[in-house]
Amino acid sequence: MADQNNDHLVQSDDPDHPANLIPRLCKQFYSLGWVTGTGGGTSIRKDEHVYVAPSGVQKELMRPENMFVLSYPTPKYPPTARRYIRKPLDLKPSACTPLFLAAFERGAGCCIHTHSQWAVLVTLLVEKFHGKGACFEISDIEQIKGVPKGPGKGMHGFHDTLRVPIIENTPFEEDLTESLEKAMEQFPDTCAVLVRRHGIYVWGSDVAKAKTQCESLDYLFQLAVEMHRLELPWTQRG
Amino acid sequence: MADQNNDHLVQSDDPDHPANLIPRLCKQFYSLGWVTGTGGGTSIRKDEHVYVAPSGVQKELMRPENMFVLSYPTPKYPPTARRYIRKPLDLKPSACTPLFLAAFERGAGCCIHTHSQWAVLVTLLVEKFHGKGACFEISDIEQIKGVPKGPGKGMHGFHDTLRVPIIENTPFEEDLTESLEKAMEQFPDTCAVLVRRHGIYVWGSDVAKAKTQCESLDYLFQLAVEMHRLELPWTQRG
Amino acid sequence: MADQNNDHLVQSDDPDHPANLIPRLCKQFYSLGWVTGTGGGTSIRKDEHVYVAPSGVQKELMRPENMFVLSYPTPKYPPTARRYIRKPLDLKPSACTPLFLAAFERGAGCCIHTHSQWAVLVTLLVEKFHGKGACFEISDIEQIKGVPKGPGKGMHGFHDTLRVPIIENTPFEEDLTESLEKAMEQFPDTCAVLVRRHGIYVWGSDVAKAKTQCESLDYLFQLAVEMHRLELPWTQRG
Amino acid sequence: MADQNNDHLVQSDDPDHPANLIPRLCKQFYSLGWVTGTGGGTSIRKDEHVYVAPSGVQKELMRPENMFVLSYPTPKYPPTARRYIRKPLDLKPSACTPLFLAAFERGAGCCIHTHSQWAVLVTLLVEKFHGKGACFEISDIEQIKGVPKGPGKGMHGFHDTLRVPIIENTPFEEDLTESLEKAMEQFPDTCAVLVRRHGIYVWGSDVAKAKTQCESLDYLFQLAVEMHRLELPWTQRG
Repeated sequence: MADQNNDHLVQSDDPDHPANLIPRLCKQFYSLGWVTGTGGGTSIRKDEHVYVAPSGVQKELMRPENMFVLSYPTPKYPPTARRYIRKPLDLKPSACTPLFLAAFERGAGCCIHTHSQWAVLVTLLVEKFHGKGACFEISDIEQIKGVPKGPGKGMHGFHDTLRVPIIENTPFEEDLTESLEKAMEQFPDTCAVLVRRHGIYVWGSDVAKAKTQCESLDYLFQLAVEMHRLELPWTQRG
Repeated sequence: MADQNNDHLVQSDDPDHPANLIPRLCKQFYSLGWVTGTGGGTSIRKDEHVYVAPSGVQKELMRPENMFVLSYPTPKYPPTARRYIRKPLDLKPSACTPLFLAAFERGAGCCIHTHSQWAVLVTLLVEKFHGKGACFEISDIEQIKGVPKGPGKGMHGFHDTLRVPIIENTPFEEDLTESLEKAMEQFPDTCAVLVRRHGIYVWGSDVAKAKTQCESLDYLFQLAVEMHRLELPWTQRG
Repeated sequence: MADQNNDHLVQSDDPDHPANLIPRLCKQFYSLGWVTGTGGGTSIRKDEHVYVAPSGVQKELMRPENMFVLSYPTPKYPPTARRYIRKPLDLKPSACTPLFLAAFERGAGCCIHTHSQWAVLVTLLVEKFHGKGACFEISDIEQIKGVPKGPGKGMHGFHDTLRVPIIENTPFEEDLTESLEKAMEQFPDTCAVLVRRHGIYVWGSDVAKAKTQCESLDYLFQLAVEMHRLELPWTQRG
Repeated sequence: MADQNNDHLVQSDDPDHPANLIPRLCKQFYSLGWVTGTGGGTSIRKDEHVYVAPSGVQKELMRPENMFVLSYPTPKYPPTARRYIRKPLDLKPSACTPLFLAAFERGAGCCIHTHSQWAVLVTLLVEKFHGKGACFEISDIEQIKGVPKGPGKGMHGFHDTLRVPIIENTPFEEDLTESLEKAMEQFPDTCAVLVRRHGIYVWGSDVAKAKTQCESLDYLFQLAVEMHRLELPWTQRG
């Protein structure tokens, strides 16, 4: 009768098992200032399971047994097939879960959500200078080569213009799902969506890709803020 | 006849015992720049005892045996019942102690005091632009959801305006107690009070809440300073 | 028949062996923000071998077995003698390799490539205020003593003007080789070349020199950006 | 015949022995950005010996056997009595040594030299706005309580004005000794001297005092630069 809560799903000796990897990633993201004050989150899909860090927990102190697990049957399944098959009794699931799932449905293997101040500041600067419908644009910076041009299209070239769509924030995080999905449709090549006054969602086909793309984007946001302060334009067009 | 100094109160194998936890927290706060040069401090209430880090000690090097312990009898007791029942012989108690106690009397389980530069800069900017009686205000930033609206009232909503009162600094830290208590009465929902040109006191019902609320506030102060530099208003009202 | 891939070249108990040292350096560089998102790289020459970190790998997670090794016969050899004698099967060689080799041909023992934002910002400020042909110049800062005046010429003096040439970036990193070599000829005393909108290459006769020179230069770039913001000139001439 | 080089002076099981403590401090100072690129240094006096970190070594990698030791006979001795009684064969003594000794002659037990960018920027701002003879002044910031008012005079009060003299840099570090000693005479209460375009020397009666005073000063320099950017005056007088 043991393990009614599927605890075996979060018990592994493999340091790269999602239940071990998410806590390690979150600790690293904490030191980068991405998940301060329980903000942000991370999710990994592995075969038929999706692992999600819980809500409201100090991200640098997370442990494997704190992970939520959803069933994620393949091949193409009805959305109703998704359900929590493991819940830590004393924790709440992350409000980001539907947003992570939106990325997984587009083939992602890992999705990272940060509250990076550079991301927030970029959304504010874009709004101030280009208005609400505009997306973040930058070109002619080497680091944009660290962001893919789209699924199967390789990485951005140095002279390409990287565009990251920005959606408006909502009072409840789960209500972002619809506009996030819309942005994913309008920008089918993007691997990230900025959320105004909130942060960013970045995904990739595996953990390494999601993490390094998130790093490259954060580098570009920080550089863009510094460039703005020094009155240097983000693209060659000005 | 041993242990006249109640050394047993700071000896525990539990890593989360206050005598072990305060040094670990202080080391983390040091790396965040909150307790540079012996500044700042941390206190935890546990049952009938209050643990306080000593004054004038390098915060990243603290050890359990450096902790002061006060008796804190419950239920409601006369203030005279509070007294040090353990004092490290070679150390001085923190001048913050009466301020920590003011938080504990309002139900806090942990109180953190930082000298964060972002907190100090915010108090200076508020004074310059809104005058001495004004409090810090920010709204429409996701991270304010990490700060509670008041005891039993849940967290701030995205569109709510977070207000943190600011009191004037005094030459002697213990003299802050009266104005801190007055601010607590005027802002009964606040979990923090800024001290102009000095830093901040943040409290919560337990260590995790006090710490994550302190992180969320510090995030907001840093963002507010950066927003000010970029001529972005802190609230939608401007 | 074992070891057809020369795995023995990356197996050593010596912590300072290039195969062990490059991962340790890359981890440190990651924490300095120099190799975010798989950017940047490091190469060490040891006797007849050149060790290079692979492309597209998380720099803080590198392992000895991830290293590429080139044969580098001495004395003076035909360029055709350089070839990979060890390739990790699942990794791609770094596009920086020809650039690292250019430094080794000028006597370097170690070459470091970073995407430091301070380096990038300095290249943008120099272009904006002095145009495309200009190099970065700074004088009268103590830290320039940490940068050599040229091979066999000792370190810069406090009143000397340190000059670092800047070359234009190219869409493909290997295409930088020609202009890098030209800059090395025009500035035969330099130990570094900045790449506009990209980063920097720094070399030295051994690992310690390359690393500390890279640190001193990065310190100077950061200081120069801060000085510019405070309207302080980089040289006494203004 | 063993130990002609007095190696026993740097061999101790006590983690707080100067030969063990200096490497640990230097590693911490490296992570604070104070001793980048082999810059800066630290020295401790213990009884009849003065321990000094060597010149030109990566500060985060120092080891006890890298320490230089000078004889420092007490009571009052002729300056000629000071001499190196232990020299690591492959290293050069620090050019800061005469500057450290100047502090020890005034009763210091530890002296720290950093190249902190905040210190350098403060010296540049003071020169620009107040001219070459001026010293750094700040008041009405809580952290100035972390800096002593003078030997035997306790710490600065909140409303006191903290003054740190600034001397001009010289091409050779040892040539700073005379002006450093002159500043120590003109400001007999100071525990620190800034060096324009170079960094700072901070001392204290023991390691903890020197280190925490250095931290408090660096905090104040950083805050002062940020205040300047936000057009906030350093003292109430403006």
